[in-house]
Amino acid sequence: MTQFYVAVGAVIERDDKFLLLKRSPEKDFKPGVWEIVTGRLEREEQPVQGVLREVEEEVGLTVKVVMPIHTTFFYRGSKEFPMVFITYWCRHLDGDVSLSWEHSEFKWVTMDDALEIYKDSPFFPEFANLKKLKQHLPTGFQLDWP
Amino acid sequence: MTQFYVAVGAVIERDDKFLLLKRSPEKDFKPGVWEIVTGRLEREEQPVQGVLREVEEEVGLTVKVVMPIHTTFFYRGSKEFPMVFITYWCRHLDGDVSLSWEHSEFKWVTMDDALEIYKDSPFFPEFANLKKLKQHLPTGFQLDWP
Repeated sequence: MTQFYVAVGAVIERDDKFLLLKRSPEKDFKPGVWEIVTGRLEREEQPVQGVLREVEEEVGLTVKVVMPIHTTFFYRGSKEFPMVFITYWCRHLDGDVSLSWEHSEFKWVTMDDALEIYKDSPFFPEFANLKKLKQHLPTGFQLDWP
Repeated sequence: MTQFYVAVGAVIERDDKFLLLKRSPEKDFKPGVWEIVTGRLEREEQPVQGVLREVEEEVGLTVKVVMPIHTTFFYRGSKEFPMVFITYWCRHLDGDVSLSWEHSEFKWVTMDDALEIYKDSPFFPEFANLKKLKQHLPTGFQLDWP
């Protein structure tokens, strides 16, 4: 049976704005592109724990995971990297953004700006899904994680 | 980097009831246990397409995928099977249940009955999450899948 690399992504919300990051020019894959926090799951790691770890490593923030909002399969660059990608909506709890080598810039944008910036991007469905959910879910809503 | 098997699960809703399946006595892993539709993702398969395929194969139903509601990592039996499991809420569209060899019984139960049946099961969080979501999301709500 096929095995996959599994990556997780975090759409981080703070005061109704969302964190976008620009990939460093040094990145081998899609340098210079605006993205969200992403990273690969490690062995024996719960996906939600992987999200918290990647967010801490890449931007130095403490967040809560609200819920998964999108899943997709793609090849990362070549057929040797079949990847399943799970994106989570996260809520900022503490800290200010501190970038790692992986990103060169960041900005907090409104939902409408995110949808415009990502209109031709693989990240569009994440934000479209989140917009739909936020129309119904109360402020502070979140699922429970064991 | 670690690779994983990826499995998807479907919590199928029909008229405010949810489909439970009893694993066949012939199953190598957890025979006789009540579960939801589950199955492994195939190569190049979008997770949502994998859900639709497994639901069709295991119970012969046509469903719509509403959204992902839970994710978890576990070993399926042995350390040789690191597994990431993504569960989706699905809405029944068409068809009556027709079991494959994988299951010996089925029943449609209320949310409260599902929570009681699964109270010591790994499927409990799926139903607990879904109960929370359904308190806020309108009838017929669903996310979009490309």
